[in-house]
Amino acid sequence: MDNLRKLAIIGLGLIGSSIARAVREVLPNILVSGYDTDEAVGARAAELELAKIVNSPEEAVADADLVILCVPVGSMAAAAKSIAGKLKPDAIVSDVGSSKSSVSADLERILPATRIVPAHPVAGTENSGPDAGFAALFHGRWCILTPGSAADGEALLMLRKFWEALGAKVEVMDPKHHDMVLAVTSHIPHLIAFTIVGTASDLEQVAQSEVIKYSAGGFRDFTRIAASSPVMWRDIFLANREAVLDTLQRFSEDLSLLQRAIRLQDGETLFNLFSRTSAIRRSIVQQGQDTAAPDFGRVQG
Amino acid sequence: MDNLRKLAIIGLGLIGSSIARAVREVLPNILVSGYDTDEAVGARAAELELAKIVNSPEEAVADADLVILCVPVGSMAAAAKSIAGKLKPDAIVSDVGSSKSSVSADLERILPATRIVPAHPVAGTENSGPDAGFAALFHGRWCILTPGSAADGEALLMLRKFWEALGAKVEVMDPKHHDMVLAVTSHIPHLIAFTIVGTASDLEQVAQSEVIKYSAGGFRDFTRIAASSPVMWRDIFLANREAVLDTLQRFSEDLSLLQRAIRLQDGETLFNLFSRTSAIRRSIVQQGQDTAAPDFGRVQG
Repeated sequence: MDNLRKLAIIGLGLIGSSIARAVREVLPNILVSGYDTDEAVGARAAELELAKIVNSPEEAVADADLVILCVPVGSMAAAAKSIAGKLKPDAIVSDVGSSKSSVSADLERILPATRIVPAHPVAGTENSGPDAGFAALFHGRWCILTPGSAADGEALLMLRKFWEALGAKVEVMDPKHHDMVLAVTSHIPHLIAFTIVGTASDLEQVAQSEVIKYSAGGFRDFTRIAASSPVMWRDIFLANREAVLDTLQRFSEDLSLLQRAIRLQDGETLFNLFSRTSAIRRSIVQQGQDTAAPDFGRVQG
Repeated sequence: MDNLRKLAIIGLGLIGSSIARAVREVLPNILVSGYDTDEAVGARAAELELAKIVNSPEEAVADADLVILCVPVGSMAAAAKSIAGKLKPDAIVSDVGSSKSSVSADLERILPATRIVPAHPVAGTENSGPDAGFAALFHGRWCILTPGSAADGEALLMLRKFWEALGAKVEVMDPKHHDMVLAVTSHIPHLIAFTIVGTASDLEQVAQSEVIKYSAGGFRDFTRIAASSPVMWRDIFLANREAVLDTLQRFSEDLSLLQRAIRLQDGETLFNLFSRTSAIRRSIVQQGQDTAAPDFGRVQG
């Protein structure tokens, strides 16, 4: 990565600020400039000394070898427009959006296609904003790159090395397949979590105070991801509409099957499904994608 | 609790073995006898010196002042029958089942109603068996008692003190209301988790290896509770059928609403729901029912 002297980060929330912190830690020779459309976020990032915070996207990307857009996927087109024409001719542009087909299309419509390498680090917490980031966020997590057919190999290689330097494992994927995979592993889980937390708040027979008190029975697990950024998630569902609706349809069918089994007192169907599901958790733990400690290693009480 | 000299625990899985460990720690003068219908479980509990392990339920409950049935809710009637006629006249019988109406009915059909105090400690992990238990499991968690109208006050008071000694907070509730509350805070979350993990394993477009690899996007959170005991959960859904189906219907309606909003690209509806849901998590953390650490305080990587 000798040819990466300056990195520009547009958007300084959880992911953008984590990238800034990680680069400071593992690639200290790279100059990092940062910009956020929200002035308060920019000011806080400056206080935290996350990067050289500047007052415009043009200033941030001037002379940058790599630009990473870390904004909600619905704001990618606007972010791309704000830097178009201000980039060095060979600057590489990437992003961290959780859906890729729409982002790829947005970027390729506005910027030179040879230098675009969309990316998605599959990592995060339920918290948002520049204070929530931390350098180790990407350690051992996967970062999926979805270059278009016009993207050149050198740009792809540089981005791969960049993410590996930050501790991530890198995979290259077609954007459409990415969107289907993430619909299952991320988008539908979030949609379901948001829904059940909403349902639980609105019941007539059960008070919200009771839902909170007795949440250790399982419900509290869902409240974590349902506390994630509303704007970010609104944008993801609109951007990955097709794959989300497709997977949701399958989930609803499977749920109806279990609903029917409960109604008909068909214990065998329930038992058979419940017996299959623990194997997946074992694999996730074995592959280092979750902790082996019971109850996520929560400190109780 | 001077009148509690001997405790019998029937069933030595996660909850039974945790009670045994907690009693050894905080009430060391109480004699604890234990029995499990599964001989291997009994042998392991003996190895772990969790209690005086005996070879029959009759032997376990002989002279016991308090008997706690720690078996799946579908086995409560059989467990009650196995001790009926063997109890001291004033022995108190309780349980730890996650649904209460059916268990109350089962116990009251078989045993003297004045001495029955059904209970549900809202605590657990995804692990099962005598090795999974630990003494601190009930610290700061709620234990719900659902005595019938015939139960006498002295029995209720003793059980309250017992659970408080183990570190739990105690609430008294009508069994029917308990079942509605727990349908929301525990049973439906488990049903949904089992379903989505099942759906994700069965998709044609996405390989199971991909689901595992990219699970840190949210999916892995659901795999924890979907790794819970299949027998225990089959029984809960059969026992709490009515409240589960009722809540499930509400959840499905709410999910359809969001599905429609995604289809119609109605970002406002999505944003409005997603903005409401983070308040509940804050309350759960404030009330000590979950950790404040991001990502459940998981140790990453």
